[in-house]
Amino acid sequence: MVQQYFYPKRLKSNDNIELGQEDSFHLIKVMRAVSGTPIEIVSSDGEKYEAKVREATIPTPIDILSKVTKKFELPVKVTILCGLPKQNKADLITQKATELGAHQIGFLEMDRSISSWDQKKRKSKIERLQKIAKEAAEQSHRTRVPKLIFLDGNQEIDFSDNLVIVCDEDIAKSNHPFSLKKTLEEHPNSHSILMIFGPEGGLSDAERQLLKDKGAVFSSLGPRILRCETAPLYALSVISALTEL
Amino acid sequence: MVQQYFYPKRLKSNDNIELGQEDSFHLIKVMRAVSGTPIEIVSSDGEKYEAKVREATIPTPIDILSKVTKKFELPVKVTILCGLPKQNKADLITQKATELGAHQIGFLEMDRSISSWDQKKRKSKIERLQKIAKEAAEQSHRTRVPKLIFLDGNQEIDFSDNLVIVCDEDIAKSNHPFSLKKTLEEHPNSHSILMIFGPEGGLSDAERQLLKDKGAVFSSLGPRILRCETAPLYALSVISALTEL
Repeated sequence: MVQQYFYPKRLKSNDNIELGQEDSFHLIKVMRAVSGTPIEIVSSDGEKYEAKVREATIPTPIDILSKVTKKFELPVKVTILCGLPKQNKADLITQKATELGAHQIGFLEMDRSISSWDQKKRKSKIERLQKIAKEAAEQSHRTRVPKLIFLDGNQEIDFSDNLVIVCDEDIAKSNHPFSLKKTLEEHPNSHSILMIFGPEGGLSDAERQLLKDKGAVFSSLGPRILRCETAPLYALSVISALTEL
Repeated sequence: MVQQYFYPKRLKSNDNIELGQEDSFHLIKVMRAVSGTPIEIVSSDGEKYEAKVREATIPTPIDILSKVTKKFELPVKVTILCGLPKQNKADLITQKATELGAHQIGFLEMDRSISSWDQKKRKSKIERLQKIAKEAAEQSHRTRVPKLIFLDGNQEIDFSDNLVIVCDEDIAKSNHPFSLKKTLEEHPNSHSILMIFGPEGGLSDAERQLLKDKGAVFSSLGPRILRCETAPLYALSVISALTEL
């Protein structure tokens, strides 16, 4: 499997570029690339190019070859917004949701969140998750790094997406037939979807009411109860199955 | 959300039972159930019953009420068989694949597995994973605990399932249109499916040839490259989307 790196500028075929310090070090010292090793470079506008190492030095000079026309991104822009979960589950959600094609990944403290990110540590936590997302995007050969966001509360939720779906386990437990597939079929042409997931204890009644009042659609994630970190990964996989397979 | 426990015998409505020591302790001391608290009990034949605590003692006497008719299991029996991954990824795969409905979960040392489970520790490792699966099955309100298996090598793979699918990232990277959805559509009426996943480094050519010779079908998991622990979770979610949503 060839290595892929993101490059912060636009590119065209036959460009000659120099890889940044960190990526060069990874490519030459960790991956032991040599002169002529094929790699892939994604430009700032999300285009992927085949490329090769010109010389195994740091920083590394790279020859850009032809553009790759295949698509790697989900055809629907999906933002997942999760009630802040316990422990290192935010890391797991970020890495896996990136692999599974999320457009944006957000966290917010909800009524039943046990964890709390105090104001001072928030910036460094988001930077850390953003780095996890970048590495996962490279590893999964995506052409976009999902943006990480942190909201101060429900009132900051952006309802400008075509479709806002609340994945609520209380609906899964009851027999209401609002499955995610049906919800998506009832809202065709939804090019950008915001999906909201509760923390470990689920949503509070006040949160359900607020989201309902704002026009969110409630949906279930099938017959089994998924943990808060599993639910967004299942949802992204279902959207992939229904839109790109 | 009510607690669910597995009971090692068959049950019928109006039975009066006593919960085992460990489950009783969990129910009364950890979950703080009281007399009358509703719970769910799954019998040894996979039937789920509504039930309630008769008295908050240990062991706990339970009144079995009515049978739950809703289905919780995937309509297709899916066994996932993974090349032994690094570190604690086997734990993650076991927990999440259980939530996502796997019928059986297996591991085997493949040519490119870096980890190795020596003969002496194998039994305790499988027991540990079996315990993770039991807890995840209770938490996700399934009516079956997936069986954990460990194979000594490729020659022990059981090809008696209707359909054996090898999920191969080299196919995902090339442009072959063998997507998992298409593979499933080409093999309707597959009631039991064995899905094989490589370890971190993927399958060796020798393994690909052996599996091909045995009649396995090769398929891809969409346009992005998934880590070895993400691939089976995606595959189970896709099968759920296509068969039960």
